[in-house]
Amino acid sequence: MSKIIKIHIINGPNLNLTGMREPGIYGQKSLDEIMALTRNYNYGTSVSITEFQSNCEGAIIDEIQKEASISDFIVINAGGYTHTSVALRDALVAAETPFCEVHISNIFAREEFRHKSMLADKAVSVISGGGEMTYILGIIAGISYLKQNLK
Amino acid sequence: MSKIIKIHIINGPNLNLTGMREPGIYGQKSLDEIMALTRNYNYGTSVSITEFQSNCEGAIIDEIQKEASISDFIVINAGGYTHTSVALRDALVAAETPFCEVHISNIFAREEFRHKSMLADKAVSVISGGGEMTYILGIIAGISYLKQNLK
Amino acid sequence: MSKIIKIHIINGPNLNLTGMREPGIYGQKSLDEIMALTRNYNYGTSVSITEFQSNCEGAIIDEIQKEASISDFIVINAGGYTHTSVALRDALVAAETPFCEVHISNIFAREEFRHKSMLADKAVSVISGGGEMTYILGIIAGISYLKQNLK
Amino acid sequence: MSKIIKIHIINGPNLNLTGMREPGIYGQKSLDEIMALTRNYNYGTSVSITEFQSNCEGAIIDEIQKEASISDFIVINAGGYTHTSVALRDALVAAETPFCEVHISNIFAREEFRHKSMLADKAVSVISGGGEMTYILGIIAGISYLKQNLK
Amino acid sequence: MSKIIKIHIINGPNLNLTGMREPGIYGQKSLDEIMALTRNYNYGTSVSITEFQSNCEGAIIDEIQKEASISDFIVINAGGYTHTSVALRDALVAAETPFCEVHISNIFAREEFRHKSMLADKAVSVISGGGEMTYILGIIAGISYLKQNLK
Amino acid sequence: MSKIIKIHIINGPNLNLTGMREPGIYGQKSLDEIMALTRNYNYGTSVSITEFQSNCEGAIIDEIQKEASISDFIVINAGGYTHTSVALRDALVAAETPFCEVHISNIFAREEFRHKSMLADKAVSVISGGGEMTYILGIIAGISYLKQNLK
Amino acid sequence: MSKIIKIHIINGPNLNLTGMREPGIYGQKSLDEIMALTRNYNYGTSVSITEFQSNCEGAIIDEIQKEASISDFIVINAGGYTHTSVALRDALVAAETPFCEVHISNIFAREEFRHKSMLADKAVSVISGGGEMTYILGIIAGISYLKQNLK
Amino acid sequence: MSKIIKIHIINGPNLNLTGMREPGIYGQKSLDEIMALTRNYNYGTSVSITEFQSNCEGAIIDEIQKEASISDFIVINAGGYTHTSVALRDALVAAETPFCEVHISNIFAREEFRHKSMLADKAVSVISGGGEMTYILGIIAGISYLKQNLK
Amino acid sequence: MSKIIKIHIINGPNLNLTGMREPGIYGQKSLDEIMALTRNYNYGTSVSITEFQSNCEGAIIDEIQKEASISDFIVINAGGYTHTSVALRDALVAAETPFCEVHISNIFAREEFRHKSMLADKAVSVISGGGEMTYILGIIAGISYLKQNLK
Amino acid sequence: MSKIIKIHIINGPNLNLTGMREPGIYGQKSLDEIMALTRNYNYGTSVSITEFQSNCEGAIIDEIQKEASISDFIVINAGGYTHTSVALRDALVAAETPFCEVHISNIFAREEFRHKSMLADKAVSVISGGGEMTYILGIIAGISYLKQNLK
Amino acid sequence: MSKIIKIHIINGPNLNLTGMREPGIYGQKSLDEIMALTRNYNYGTSVSITEFQSNCEGAIIDEIQKEASISDFIVINAGGYTHTSVALRDALVAAETPFCEVHISNIFAREEFRHKSMLADKAVSVISGGGEMTYILGIIAGISYLKQNLK
Amino acid sequence: MSKIIKIHIINGPNLNLTGMREPGIYGQKSLDEIMALTRNYNYGTSVSITEFQSNCEGAIIDEIQKEASISDFIVINAGGYTHTSVALRDALVAAETPFCEVHISNIFAREEFRHKSMLADKAVSVISGGGEMTYILGIIAGISYLKQNLK
Repeated sequence: MSKIIKIHIINGPNLNLTGMREPGIYGQKSLDEIMALTRNYNYGTSVSITEFQSNCEGAIIDEIQKEASISDFIVINAGGYTHTSVALRDALVAAETPFCEVHISNIFAREEFRHKSMLADKAVSVISGGGEMTYILGIIAGISYLKQNLK
Repeated sequence: MSKIIKIHIINGPNLNLTGMREPGIYGQKSLDEIMALTRNYNYGTSVSITEFQSNCEGAIIDEIQKEASISDFIVINAGGYTHTSVALRDALVAAETPFCEVHISNIFAREEFRHKSMLADKAVSVISGGGEMTYILGIIAGISYLKQNLK
Repeated sequence: MSKIIKIHIINGPNLNLTGMREPGIYGQKSLDEIMALTRNYNYGTSVSITEFQSNCEGAIIDEIQKEASISDFIVINAGGYTHTSVALRDALVAAETPFCEVHISNIFAREEFRHKSMLADKAVSVISGGGEMTYILGIIAGISYLKQNLK
Repeated sequence: MSKIIKIHIINGPNLNLTGMREPGIYGQKSLDEIMALTRNYNYGTSVSITEFQSNCEGAIIDEIQKEASISDFIVINAGGYTHTSVALRDALVAAETPFCEVHISNIFAREEFRHKSMLADKAVSVISGGGEMTYILGIIAGISYLKQNLK
Repeated sequence: MSKIIKIHIINGPNLNLTGMREPGIYGQKSLDEIMALTRNYNYGTSVSITEFQSNCEGAIIDEIQKEASISDFIVINAGGYTHTSVALRDALVAAETPFCEVHISNIFAREEFRHKSMLADKAVSVISGGGEMTYILGIIAGISYLKQNLK
Repeated sequence: MSKIIKIHIINGPNLNLTGMREPGIYGQKSLDEIMALTRNYNYGTSVSITEFQSNCEGAIIDEIQKEASISDFIVINAGGYTHTSVALRDALVAAETPFCEVHISNIFAREEFRHKSMLADKAVSVISGGGEMTYILGIIAGISYLKQNLK
Repeated sequence: MSKIIKIHIINGPNLNLTGMREPGIYGQKSLDEIMALTRNYNYGTSVSITEFQSNCEGAIIDEIQKEASISDFIVINAGGYTHTSVALRDALVAAETPFCEVHISNIFAREEFRHKSMLADKAVSVISGGGEMTYILGIIAGISYLKQNLK
Repeated sequence: MSKIIKIHIINGPNLNLTGMREPGIYGQKSLDEIMALTRNYNYGTSVSITEFQSNCEGAIIDEIQKEASISDFIVINAGGYTHTSVALRDALVAAETPFCEVHISNIFAREEFRHKSMLADKAVSVISGGGEMTYILGIIAGISYLKQNLK
Repeated sequence: MSKIIKIHIINGPNLNLTGMREPGIYGQKSLDEIMALTRNYNYGTSVSITEFQSNCEGAIIDEIQKEASISDFIVINAGGYTHTSVALRDALVAAETPFCEVHISNIFAREEFRHKSMLADKAVSVISGGGEMTYILGIIAGISYLKQNLK
Repeated sequence: MSKIIKIHIINGPNLNLTGMREPGIYGQKSLDEIMALTRNYNYGTSVSITEFQSNCEGAIIDEIQKEASISDFIVINAGGYTHTSVALRDALVAAETPFCEVHISNIFAREEFRHKSMLADKAVSVISGGGEMTYILGIIAGISYLKQNLK
Repeated sequence: MSKIIKIHIINGPNLNLTGMREPGIYGQKSLDEIMALTRNYNYGTSVSITEFQSNCEGAIIDEIQKEASISDFIVINAGGYTHTSVALRDALVAAETPFCEVHISNIFAREEFRHKSMLADKAVSVISGGGEMTYILGIIAGISYLKQNLK
Repeated sequence: MSKIIKIHIINGPNLNLTGMREPGIYGQKSLDEIMALTRNYNYGTSVSITEFQSNCEGAIIDEIQKEASISDFIVINAGGYTHTSVALRDALVAAETPFCEVHISNIFAREEFRHKSMLADKAVSVISGGGEMTYILGIIAGISYLKQNLK
């Protein structure tokens, strides 16, 4: 494992609207504010955090393919694609980079069709409903996983 | 409500082929001809109509996000994405712009998988099988909705 | 096609209570007011509009059988029978009069059992959630259909 | 068993249109012609045949209740109510008159929802797709049943 | 709440046969005898009880609409319509009169299709299998509900 | 159509035991007795009746293939293969000989898995529960079908 | 039947919190207050009422086994175990004591998983949504059942 | 909110075997070691952590009821009861203490029946597959929730 | 019951390959070796054991019909026909010989479609996963059944 | 493998009533009598048999955990918990002691919900419907398994 | 791998009728003509092709068992048995000969019940809708598989 | 048909990773190598082969629309979009270019959700699991189809 753990955060469709969109569900902080919080957290180890957001399924797949050889761990909030995208699942499996699936709101407290994830059985862990701590929780889980499996 | 009602029409995948594609199902008028018909209809009130078409789910989401602060009402024919796209649904809900879901052909007279829409329960109204009048019917429904809810 | 287009509107169970019943769902106009609005709309062509309402499935079937040889088009809001009545479906198919299925409220935004219609796949078009414009939208769709198919 | 076997034929919704309605499915003979054929058939025993038709579920139930103490056997073509009516099933069971369920067209060759009958498991026999012989087949089955069970 | 509590009992299809029909399931008392028992029970408060029975779904809906402004509470045994009628459900919801759904036999000990009620989730309470006490139990539940919610 | 109508009766697995096997369900006459009854019935027209029974799915298919060019009509009681055999269905469709599916007992009054037939939607008619008249009913239906479709 | 009717009330998990827990659903009276009300009701006959509550499935089964030879009737509100416990069902059937299943709130107006009861088809009657009268309704049903079946 | 945040960790059936049981799934640390790790983590705020483990559903419900008035937040790993226990769900909802559902292994990568949780839609967040960090992730999520909702 | 208990063992498709076929699932003993083991077991009573194997469904049905009047008990391992054959079920029921369904491997630990047996509800007992003892277990169960039911 | 094979029999809820409870299903011997029969059977090898019964799921799990390091094989009749308990399944898997699932009555001949076992796919073998021989059959299967896998 | 690749083609029920049977679906060439075409194709390597056809499931299983030790590869068109036969699947798996599942018509464009194959997940590849090239495609796939896996 | 057959190969998401991605499933040849193999194969007729790959659903639809008037046949491996994309299906149907659906790995031997294709019923043929021969098999099927249907 590289000395500095490289973690890539991928945000899917509509997450660029976080803070503006349905604040009762997604909270009032913007995605930028949440990302700043995430970068500034003390993980107790050297972590390098990069970010990507797109509304386009194909662009997210391109990004995962590109990151496969760069990142140690992916934290992905695939938004609406979580529940439908076989292609995204295939990209993550092909990348062979361990990943954590995260959701700002608790998907199990929402519509029935959000209870099924196409990614979850391939993830190291699934964090559903972490609010502004969502990505931090995913990164902590990732660091712990890397420490146990890659040493 | 602005004096001139701003209505944005969004057409999803393959609708650019209307008139050429399966005329027994979609009719013989091209999308341009149907749009001209739609723009020239007398709605009995001032209406400004803009249009957008893309085959790409991500591009349609981008468009909805951009239009959220501009349009008073969206008339959307999401084509094949109607039945599968959680991301599109999320974009429309996030936009908070009231919208009408429309289909040129009657989706209930076609394959089973077209009977389920991911958008319908969030729409003001659903028009299935309006033929060349499809978008006009959606706009009339939109104007009526705006007059009753936004005055 | 006769010079004056003859359109018959059929309203099923509980629609006689419109305006009194759950106004948050069905609006505050009475069925009489909505029918007046519908009769007074300018359809840009000669239209003769007749109406019928009953709470009894058998009486509605009798009516459809009687109207089969009289009307050019039927606009039907079958209320609760929409979701359960094979007999009503059979009557409409037997009548061979083209028809439009309409609903004042958007049935897709309500209970699961309202999402299935026994009539929809036989209709020219389905209008779900037209509010006070419901019947007008159905008639416009009907006139357009007749002009394209019967000339 | 009475010397003359009393058989009552009950026809449900839309069967009064037989011959006019979808002749490709239901044939070209009117219900009256089919009934005449049925009355004139030589059953090899004394049979008295009476008939009833209504489009109204409640009226059919009233009729079954009335016939319970009169007829020896009921031949019922419940049309569209076959597939949905618990009330009709209850009426037939309450009547305790043995009955045969019949259909002019073969319901198993039509829409999925016609494959389920609410009456079939309580019937002596089910005849699906007898064409103009439908009621004759039902009466033959009835006579045979009565001869074996009631002597 | 009016000083004398007005309770309307509605009986659906085939309940007029109670006592004659399948006595092993429905008991040996006639509907009249059960109604007499129900009227003569001491409810510990002033109660006025009226009754209605019909085999026709439409007639029951008419009755519910008429009673909406008269009765304080409805006790309904919708018989076979319980399991299938959206129209009856709509009528009860439109009436805004609180109601109790009752069944003489225990519907959960019978065929699978009787386990689902279209009315139950809108009822104040559901009594399944009260035998000759069925309507009395429904009225006691109704009086208790009215005393707690309407004072 | 040949002057003498040639009808072939095919009986599937376990029907050779009729009369011995579960007489409460299948009656007390042996298959031979029922066949004699069937041959001796007066069909009002010249009919030649042949018979075949086997417990083996493959042998029944061989028989259907062989009969395809000989018989005018097949009456088939496929026993337990009715509910499971795609191969039998394919043989009957390939034969292009019209056929009637028959059952001595009423399959709809028995186990759930007997309610589905792999043959029914391809049959001219389905007779379920004809008792000792089963094959006679099937032949009458066949003669009627041939007279109407082949003249 | 013993001169004094012995009725045992069994309350399952979380019912000890009644009055404190979600008062909008379960009302504001404590279980003790409801039990006092139940004991003080005039049933018009001699009734001895005993009570038991436990959060433990095994303890409730032990109790049912113990009561089998003592009580004439059981009124059981099995709380959350209602929907899942085969073991509880088996205990009640083994006990051979007739019982009534009761619920303070109307389970049919709540989550889907509460609509299925593992006990209901074995109960004399089911009372769903009796509020503070719940146990009284169950006891009245029990007394009526005992009077009709055990004399 | 009390100055020191009181967090109660509840472990359900078989979690006392962690470290010994299927180490490929649950890891090699014992529950005591994981709990020590959890207590010693620096949460950046004053936290008091208590623990409970039982194999008995009833005992866990008793514990939740007792803790309702003491703890600020519950972190629960309900083990096998997660997927089946309505009673546990009811206890947590009745307690009105916000809670986080956690799992050491990722339940979505295991058998189908583990994908459904009876608790998840009522939880603040769900952590599936946190390994030895499981309880720490749940506590971080809890502290964040309390800070945002209770100040 | 005859003095010597006559037990017939029937093996279905592919069981002749036992020992050669997937030894990890079916073990390494051949069918002949297992049958020898079975014959040589001391059942503590006089038992006559006969055997039959075929890959053909029809031949197995013929065999069951033939054995019906000879054997006291059948031990059947129907292999792949277990899960699909209504005809085999019918043959066993028609035979009226009590039988035990056995499987060498545990069918519940294999593919989903092997969990359903068409024979199991008619069997005296079902032994799934008896390895080389499979037939011995079935015979012991059979002897016990015969001793209890036929003396 | 220890010289004397240690086998622990675990009986779940309501099995303590065997002999008293529904003797038509479970037989007339008490659990003690069946256990005596089981202990006295000649297994042809040294076997030490211990027993445990409880109505409480948690107590059974405690027992399995305790026995994990003591017994060579478990024979479990989990009664009603068989069909619902993930926790019991987890305990058995965690114990790593091979086990046999047994049932006195044939669960496949009873209610639908008894056809699914949460334990079966993890068992060495499943014995359904062994009557008084049930536990003996399970022990024979266990000894055979141990002899083949542990030598 | 033997120098000459030995490929055995197995055709199931009704395929002997190819060319005569539903030519719109299966084409106009007879099975013999298609087989001649298949034998004469230049596979670019030495191939020995043998053929077998039967309408009997058991005979096909016998054939597969016999071919197991002879052929290098099986190309099987199991016709109607494809969708139902566990026994055929078991025979192919037991044979351990790699195989390709082929269909002349595209099964996915036909009835729903043809979309499920009992063989497909065990096949090297599945060819659906190859027309007269069907067997050639299967053989090419087979040769390629053998070259990659067996060298 | 043009003299040189123009075939366009379309590859969907993640297929650009072939050879690098899960080689146990997709083989070790890169997509370029497989395409070279495909171009160099001797099809026995003049074929012009072009290729396209994209991870973006919209871009693939654009490509299909563009190719509609150019290619004679499309061979499409839609990757993960195969199982979810109505829009892709619509594009292929609109294009009216016959196509073959292909998969390198056998989708029926993988996860359940890969067994359903949104394209298959519109394809000329489906090749599942062709390995490095996948595209060659699709082209052979295409040439055969064109020769039979377009001459």
